[in-house]
Amino acid sequence: MSSNKTNTIASLGEFGLIDRLTNNINLKNTSSFLGVGDDCAIIDLNENESFLITTDLLVEGVHFNLMYVPLKHLGYKAVAINVSDICAMNGRAEQITVSIAASSKFPVEALDELYAGINLACDAFHVDLVGGDMSSALSGLTISITAIGRVEKNKITLRSGAKLNDIVLVTGSLGASYMGLQILERENEVFKVNPSLQPLLDGYDELIQRQLMPEARHDMIDLLAELGVIPTSMIDLSDGLASDIFHLCEKSNLGCELFQDKIPMDDKTKLTALEFNMSPVTCALNGGEDYELLFTVKQADFDKIVGNPNFTPIGYMTSKEDGRNLVGASGEIIPLTAQGWKIN
Amino acid sequence: MSSNKTNTIASLGEFGLIDRLTNNINLKNTSSFLGVGDDCAIIDLNENESFLITTDLLVEGVHFNLMYVPLKHLGYKAVAINVSDICAMNGRAEQITVSIAASSKFPVEALDELYAGINLACDAFHVDLVGGDMSSALSGLTISITAIGRVEKNKITLRSGAKLNDIVLVTGSLGASYMGLQILERENEVFKVNPSLQPLLDGYDELIQRQLMPEARHDMIDLLAELGVIPTSMIDLSDGLASDIFHLCEKSNLGCELFQDKIPMDDKTKLTALEFNMSPVTCALNGGEDYELLFTVKQADFDKIVGNPNFTPIGYMTSKEDGRNLVGASGEIIPLTAQGWKIN
Repeated sequence: MSSNKTNTIASLGEFGLIDRLTNNINLKNTSSFLGVGDDCAIIDLNENESFLITTDLLVEGVHFNLMYVPLKHLGYKAVAINVSDICAMNGRAEQITVSIAASSKFPVEALDELYAGINLACDAFHVDLVGGDMSSALSGLTISITAIGRVEKNKITLRSGAKLNDIVLVTGSLGASYMGLQILERENEVFKVNPSLQPLLDGYDELIQRQLMPEARHDMIDLLAELGVIPTSMIDLSDGLASDIFHLCEKSNLGCELFQDKIPMDDKTKLTALEFNMSPVTCALNGGEDYELLFTVKQADFDKIVGNPNFTPIGYMTSKEDGRNLVGASGEIIPLTAQGWKIN
Repeated sequence: MSSNKTNTIASLGEFGLIDRLTNNINLKNTSSFLGVGDDCAIIDLNENESFLITTDLLVEGVHFNLMYVPLKHLGYKAVAINVSDICAMNGRAEQITVSIAASSKFPVEALDELYAGINLACDAFHVDLVGGDMSSALSGLTISITAIGRVEKNKITLRSGAKLNDIVLVTGSLGASYMGLQILERENEVFKVNPSLQPLLDGYDELIQRQLMPEARHDMIDLLAELGVIPTSMIDLSDGLASDIFHLCEKSNLGCELFQDKIPMDDKTKLTALEFNMSPVTCALNGGEDYELLFTVKQADFDKIVGNPNFTPIGYMTSKEDGRNLVGASGEIIPLTAQGWKIN
């Protein structure tokens, strides 16, 4: 132990902790190309292809609340977020393993529902469930999924590949998943106070769906291939645009300038944000769990992609010295902070 | 839901549960060769090789007790048991991913110790830690490890490949890990009653080491290759000889006859079993966690392996109709039961 003072996990945070625990790793096998520090690890497969490996934990009480998350949706989402990490490296997921730890009092019918969602996602994303483990636990439900994918070596897209003046784009629209979570949590609070009240979920279906059952954008990986575009860097939007663009900037050793007005948001997301007295753009920047793809392309490739309704250009990469900035609605420059852009 | 009655996980058991949840899986990708039902899943790699994938969960309070398991040992063991599954398919582990869920009050220094053990095992087994996930949890520590290995296609060894009259062999000696656990639990009970008493662990070092820090027998995979022996079937001894030979019999659609006197046990294991008023052979049959390899070879290969001190022949495969039997010290036939052989 190198320190006299005891640090807790909470005090270091996830990224600090991972850095601390993995900073002295030397790769020993010639097949191990890239370790910790991107969406997936890369393993050599053959002359033309690599394997991608990613893993995610979902812990009850931390990542989901079974008071309002149906198990079938949870199973679907658990697969989707792993497949999304494979997409973020420009690859295609092919296999998953699923490990579950659940209280031994957990009804088997509940696990049936969870696996129904897992199987539905396997069908949707064309992946095979090839293995796993099952354990009892003293309490709660923990889901650990590992996804394995494949990518042509010349298409591998890292967080670190962005270049000065590359265009920043996102797929789909942002903020909906976060607003769906707000709706679910609001109605759950109402339910806890008065269980006889029916939850008011009508009209919010799409937001709730985006929260409970996000899609991995493997369709966008196919579309990029069709358009002949290989992004220079990419990440999936799990923590929120502000946090995730930071990863691209940091790994690529660049800055960025994003335009608030360009950030794609559905009207329903904007209206619901206002209903909650939140700034819509804050939801898009800091909300997270959209599982859309955030990527950069070189200017020479921009013609291939501009005008395609699936992709929205939201800014460009600047030099590191220029910082990481958001251009507000009135043209004001707002520095993005490490925790994302804070509204006043 | 197909049943009106609610089943709990405990009522179905691990194997029943896995069967129930995975019985309607169809593999969609041509690269997915073998799914659930062996030590590892097999994924096509190239003309001559396959990837092996395996995953194991370790849950505090279920698989380990932090009252007497040092975190460094726990990290080592967590890697070893996954590498052992790769060995059981006659492969070599190359990469692991490690996911940890821990209470946010868990000191970072404790995670340092856990990772010190993980890194030690990575060095010992020549594997690379290439990724993972880190999460807080409401309580307890959960470790989920996935190992990826490689095997030449003509050497892949399944549980299902044993043939009539094949010789059954084990590596190393059995029962030591279980006796190590008994020692640790005895001293832990003493400690709970009177924390000022020093635990009596002297003289039991090797047994405790076998429990806390088991080795994956990758050295035996190398030795088998040197000897030019490809086992017809193989499994690693995690649940105990009785339970694990059942898997080979069931998947190979055969019976077996094992000889009690041939089962390799250290003197210290036998003496400690007697000290605990246990039958030594019961410890070997039902103890589990030895992580030695149990395998079968065809009679034609027996000459290559007989007399090698690393391998002990303990019986042979019979027809399914002959059942699964242990020949006792006096020549009596004792049927092995699904829960392992029960002593009177």
